Amino acid sequence: MPPVFQSVTPEIITRLTAIFGAENISTTQADIDLHARDQSFHHAAPAEVVVWPDSAEQVAVALKLANEARIPVTAWGVGTGLEGNSIPIFGGVLMSFERMTRIVEVHADDFQVTVQPGIGHKDLNAQLARYGLFFPPDPGANATIGGMLANNAAGIRTVKYGASKDNVLRMQVALADGRLITVGSRSVKQAAGYDLLHLFVGSEGTLGIITEATLKLVPVPALMSAALATFDSVQAAVETVVAVRGSGLDPAALEFIDAAHCKMLSTSDGVDLEERPTLFMEFHAAQPEALKAGLTMVKQICEEMGALSFRSTTDNAERKQLWTARHHSLEIMKRLHPDKKFFVNDVAVPISAYPELIGFVEDLRTADGVKTYMIGHAGDGNIHVEFPFSDEAEYQKVMATNGKIVMKAIELGGTATGEHGVGIGKMKYMPAEHGPALDVMRTIKQSLDPNGILNPGKVLPETLESTQA
Amino acid sequence: MPPVFQSVTPEIITRLTAIFGAENISTTQADIDLHARDQSFHHAAPAEVVVWPDSAEQVAVALKLANEARIPVTAWGVGTGLEGNSIPIFGGVLMSFERMTRIVEVHADDFQVTVQPGIGHKDLNAQLARYGLFFPPDPGANATIGGMLANNAAGIRTVKYGASKDNVLRMQVALADGRLITVGSRSVKQAAGYDLLHLFVGSEGTLGIITEATLKLVPVPALMSAALATFDSVQAAVETVVAVRGSGLDPAALEFIDAAHCKMLSTSDGVDLEERPTLFMEFHAAQPEALKAGLTMVKQICEEMGALSFRSTTDNAERKQLWTARHHSLEIMKRLHPDKKFFVNDVAVPISAYPELIGFVEDLRTADGVKTYMIGHAGDGNIHVEFPFSDEAEYQKVMATNGKIVMKAIELGGTATGEHGVGIGKMKYMPAEHGPALDVMRTIKQSLDPNGILNPGKVLPETLESTQA
Repeated sequence: MPPVFQSVTPEIITRLTAIFGAENISTTQADIDLHARDQSFHHAAPAEVVVWPDSAEQVAVALKLANEARIPVTAWGVGTGLEGNSIPIFGGVLMSFERMTRIVEVHADDFQVTVQPGIGHKDLNAQLARYGLFFPPDPGANATIGGMLANNAAGIRTVKYGASKDNVLRMQVALADGRLITVGSRSVKQAAGYDLLHLFVGSEGTLGIITEATLKLVPVPALMSAALATFDSVQAAVETVVAVRGSGLDPAALEFIDAAHCKMLSTSDGVDLEERPTLFMEFHAAQPEALKAGLTMVKQICEEMGALSFRSTTDNAERKQLWTARHHSLEIMKRLHPDKKFFVNDVAVPISAYPELIGFVEDLRTADGVKTYMIGHAGDGNIHVEFPFSDEAEYQKVMATNGKIVMKAIELGGTATGEHGVGIGKMKYMPAEHGPALDVMRTIKQSLDPNGILNPGKVLPETLESTQA
Repeated sequence: MPPVFQSVTPEIITRLTAIFGAENISTTQADIDLHARDQSFHHAAPAEVVVWPDSAEQVAVALKLANEARIPVTAWGVGTGLEGNSIPIFGGVLMSFERMTRIVEVHADDFQVTVQPGIGHKDLNAQLARYGLFFPPDPGANATIGGMLANNAAGIRTVKYGASKDNVLRMQVALADGRLITVGSRSVKQAAGYDLLHLFVGSEGTLGIITEATLKLVPVPALMSAALATFDSVQAAVETVVAVRGSGLDPAALEFIDAAHCKMLSTSDGVDLEERPTLFMEFHAAQPEALKAGLTMVKQICEEMGALSFRSTTDNAERKQLWTARHHSLEIMKRLHPDKKFFVNDVAVPISAYPELIGFVEDLRTADGVKTYMIGHAGDGNIHVEFPFSDEAEYQKVMATNGKIVMKAIELGGTATGEHGVGIGKMKYMPAEHGPALDVMRTIKQSLDPNGILNPGKVLPETLESTQA
């Protein structure tokens, strides 16, 4: 039976005000609107009340209240989600972590930091610079740590440093019934019972709400180099990805941009690209000799794999210039299409299936008559197909093509979402991706959140059948 | 209510024989005895019947039968566990994976391999050598992949490559009720719902039985170097560990041996050690220049941190010689104490707490009057305190001291077990380590194995209260 939720009553507002203080609760239209949609194109939905917790204890007490009253609670970082992950589609309480942004402790010798969930990862890294350490996952936007962990965000450097799930050691989590638990350990090794840490990471606030996290950090690389290579086919580019990884070079980024995208980007000032499948690479090293030897090896591999051009640099300014097109691809693309919106797809496959997936998308350009650009974290087999569109009719057409790409990725042994999360947009593909394992997810959801109050209408498709009383 | 189990009846034997075939089931005393204890000192316990599955489907069907009949099922790899993890303490069915040792598929371009759970990791790596790839976790013994995943085994190279949990992408798991599910994905990135993969990894066969796994592989390093440095204090050695890791050098192994252990080892032929806290290091590189530059940097760091001696080599034979003491420490120790057994403790802490933990153990030598040697994966904050003992009275004394060390590790923000798992021996420390999160583990166990048939008496302390009808 899908849950039936109750409305937020004046009495509930009074009790929430007692928990959070009058300064930290709002029912104004402006605040409701500010938390009604993320950066996706999913429909906005209004919460009934917005609260700004100041502590884990407040989160826990409010969850207990909401659970007993059958009121939905949706956690909110900073609204940079791309799949509607934080849209409060059944109303209820929107819990914003905007005021829990503290660095609790820097454990510099342990290469760890303990933070509150509302801190942005860029803000965190700015403060960590003095220790020569950084938190590597980088989804682009200044997403909060809580949001990144809840969605298992990743980004460009995952090929070397892993996704959010690989860079967290310990979390404090508030459960639906108001219990506060600690999962994981500050010990980097732990073989002591069930891995609850990774159960909550990526659960998108549907099993519990992250109230504190201890993150793994890595030393800021002493030296960085960049390389750019072009190929006459996607196949050759992907074979080069495999060869570079197989060489033991351990690239810090290994990005792909397709010919159509290169052509479009190259019409912008300061971008020097050819209309060919192109690989962008970055390498980190502790010594200049290692950096140079690495570049020599990369060049040799690219040439052996038939690269049509190869450029590289160890100079910081030149490196940034070489990567301009990749780093600014989204904004350049938007600037060049002032009348369009962009839907960004996110699927991932085993790298050996990458050429087939790319070929499939290229064929759909003709078959479905849609315009697409492709950019991807090739080192991880992750591709983002970018679809420009103008209106609802075009958006629906784009969604239909997107659905074909998602199903193809799953068919190729991949996933409906590499790093954007399920949210609203990917729910319908979960049965195809997980088969009977989806029932185990349902069992776990039921056992930890029996009243279904945590971020309903996300991850598990049947939660969309919930209703407001 | 703890479960009440039923005995294996002749009818059950008939039905199991129908599932596995007469060749793959045994109730002989010899087979029961062979599967009654692991390499620990926990009491042996006889299963009632041993079965050797040939397929995941057989595992699933047998679990369904056992679940309906309330008969315990304990999975068995090759018996190298160190905490009684696979001892069938409530009898029932012992399921040995000795006949499921196939490599199902090598996905060379994806740096992945799919295997059956009974294959030994050394046997797997021997077969993978032709592809220039290997599975890095190495617990020492030729443990099976299924056992390593079930216990989240780790070993010497975890500092660079991670533990078993970090090197698996996808598993097929048979649940207590006979469902066969697939968790995780061959895509290295996945943000599609709950991370069931890591829920089953490290669950020691108490939530499900692993019937197939796709592992991450890494390229066999082209070049390796080794270094050995001695210090006048544990503090100086550990500060060097932090400095080496902070330099960005990315060591492939960073091991510690205490002065007492060095002294003892150095009485053996071919071992050239001083009686001082000693670090053993290994580095991997793709180019000779990088390897040499790395060693120059390590030497400089060790000297700055006050190393009393430093030796290094890039020659393979010399590297093996330099590491002899570390690689053969256990067998040398046993040879030098022919009349003793050894209990090997396994705790881990954040690296900053390592000196305090080591100091605590050194103090206990006097306070408790026990002899101990220490050897550890310092890069991970993991230490093994090795206790020689002769008889039950000495073993109990050792256990008491071990208990103090475990509680100290937990107090320091660490864990009761870094890599050996909970099994029987570490169950009693789970409440101290996990606090209220242990209740969440109980909830999950209850929801996935309501009759408690999967490896009862392990991980969760109350399961020891189960009884045989």
